[in-house]
Amino acid sequence: MTRRVVNFYAGPAGLPLPALERTRDELLDFAGTGMSVMEISHRSKEYEAVHDEAIALVRELMGLPANYKVLLLQGGAHLAFGMVPLNLLRHGRKADYITTGNWAERAFAEAKLVAGDRVREAGSTKKEKFARLPKAAELKFDPEAAFVHFTSNNTVEGTQWQQFPATGKPYVCDMSSDIMWRKFPVEQFGLIYAGAQKNLGPSGVTVVIVRDDFLAMCNAEGLPSYLGYPIHAEKNSLYNTPPCLGIYILRNVLAYNKSIGGLAAIEANNRRKGALLYGCIDRHAGFYKPFVTEKADRSFMNVDFFLPTKDLIDLFVKEAKKNGMIGLKGYRDVGGIRASIYNAVSVADVETLVAFMEGFVKRNG
Amino acid sequence: MTRRVVNFYAGPAGLPLPALERTRDELLDFAGTGMSVMEISHRSKEYEAVHDEAIALVRELMGLPANYKVLLLQGGAHLAFGMVPLNLLRHGRKADYITTGNWAERAFAEAKLVAGDRVREAGSTKKEKFARLPKAAELKFDPEAAFVHFTSNNTVEGTQWQQFPATGKPYVCDMSSDIMWRKFPVEQFGLIYAGAQKNLGPSGVTVVIVRDDFLAMCNAEGLPSYLGYPIHAEKNSLYNTPPCLGIYILRNVLAYNKSIGGLAAIEANNRRKGALLYGCIDRHAGFYKPFVTEKADRSFMNVDFFLPTKDLIDLFVKEAKKNGMIGLKGYRDVGGIRASIYNAVSVADVETLVAFMEGFVKRNG
Repeated sequence: MTRRVVNFYAGPAGLPLPALERTRDELLDFAGTGMSVMEISHRSKEYEAVHDEAIALVRELMGLPANYKVLLLQGGAHLAFGMVPLNLLRHGRKADYITTGNWAERAFAEAKLVAGDRVREAGSTKKEKFARLPKAAELKFDPEAAFVHFTSNNTVEGTQWQQFPATGKPYVCDMSSDIMWRKFPVEQFGLIYAGAQKNLGPSGVTVVIVRDDFLAMCNAEGLPSYLGYPIHAEKNSLYNTPPCLGIYILRNVLAYNKSIGGLAAIEANNRRKGALLYGCIDRHAGFYKPFVTEKADRSFMNVDFFLPTKDLIDLFVKEAKKNGMIGLKGYRDVGGIRASIYNAVSVADVETLVAFMEGFVKRNG
Repeated sequence: MTRRVVNFYAGPAGLPLPALERTRDELLDFAGTGMSVMEISHRSKEYEAVHDEAIALVRELMGLPANYKVLLLQGGAHLAFGMVPLNLLRHGRKADYITTGNWAERAFAEAKLVAGDRVREAGSTKKEKFARLPKAAELKFDPEAAFVHFTSNNTVEGTQWQQFPATGKPYVCDMSSDIMWRKFPVEQFGLIYAGAQKNLGPSGVTVVIVRDDFLAMCNAEGLPSYLGYPIHAEKNSLYNTPPCLGIYILRNVLAYNKSIGGLAAIEANNRRKGALLYGCIDRHAGFYKPFVTEKADRSFMNVDFFLPTKDLIDLFVKEAKKNGMIGLKGYRDVGGIRASIYNAVSVADVETLVAFMEGFVKRNG
């Protein structure tokens, strides 16, 4: 019997057990080929079926309109931080970036490397340590900006845009840590990118969703070929050898997501998990102090909170680990506790954490 | 009982069965963590141990001197085609490229995108369809070139530099399809890159080996951060989330390589496999026609040959498949048969192929 822990890591993070079991069971012999999926040509019909199914499942689960392409690339959000401005901003175009946390700031800094002063910060809550999202009145957009970049969920700080910012412009969005947590109207998005390692699959796969007009805006002239989005769109992400094993596992995760009722079922689970965990924090507001200052900005993916002392934080992490709960130590910039409760974390997992938190406050509160 | 075929794919290609079995057995619970290796933080001590072991095994198996760094990146050789000139050639430096096949030409074309006329073709056998490597007298080097780029094994055409070209310059080398096939004196190499999906592991991992003086020559100024080699060297390839699962499998493959006697044992196997297969081709020289025109240039990794007619080629592929041998169809630019016999293809596998070839020539010769 395999022992499995309750996994609250912020990413790489837990994946659905049935998707992992399928991966294990087929590891030496995939689709009746007598090979592992990592041993077969990416030009074979067996691999291409997986590749196409992964893309079709992204489309289906998210309800993407026909004028969006799905690309499966490499390099994570970090490479996307660079590819977005390399494709969209080298030739005089301008953009606004909303910086709402550690990763949003990195996206902005990388865009400045490429486009300098043509990218502007449209708003930031850095003075408040990113403990809330900016209000509409705090955002100022450049009328000449071609798009507004934002980060839909701030993994480090635990804020999430429940309503996307009112910009009047197309969005470009880093959705690495909350893609597939719920369905949303995609029409205002020109481009979405997401490293797989939170809600989608293993690290090493990057999902890019791009609207046809944004694809047409991409200018890959003079760029090394891998760095241009259009070639990947034209070749169905088979321009070069893709990360086949990672894409296969992405397919397994998405097929599992579909089997349990798609994003409607996943969202219901996520809302229940959030209600349980924030409910516990709010019940013991004198003991558990949320990092995020505005309830409306709370993330359903990453829940950051403090305990009264540093010693209690350390004890919490230690005792939780003893009880089979892993990955609760907060990110270095914030400290405290961070419970990441991505899609693969079950309601029962959160109930386990909440029961532990109730006991902990009784013993130490 | 898992059925396994004999795998002659050119890449992604077969991997050693014990390395795959270890991957399967640990897939739900890695290193006693109760998690898959793809579910655990890349900052955890358990993952870092794997990461460091993979790097240490590259060093040990290849016998790398202390003044080389090993980086584990993403994007395959394609992204490396761009990263090499972006790091080394943007600021007036010059380089020579030897173009000996399909992939060598791509490397050259990508370098020209970045550095224009500052990269020169030092020699090419394109007029002969790359069916041999250039002779020393056919190579002309620019005295101002900072390095000479070459492709150590030409996957498509089936040529391999048994003696590296005499250049008097440091090498930069695409070793994607023959890294780890034998030990070689590494001192003349300034930088080596290799997509993992032939001799190392799954696609989605790129191994880069860089000499300290070449690392110091890298200028990442103004590049999106992911594209600079120095940041990855400084952060031990943990600047961003690495492709953890792929690196773990790389570690499993290399640990297996070490367990069977390292590169000395692997080279002996490879030479035996080459002798068996080329022996059969040469015995039936009227029937099996090698694509490569110079015996000295023959590859121990990819063996290209023709049969008298297109129909016989198709029949060969079909009957081989019926006998459990996969991946023998030649690359579209060359046609014919290509048997890729990377490290994970055993002597017994090649004996199976040779026995089939002997029977085929008897029935159809």
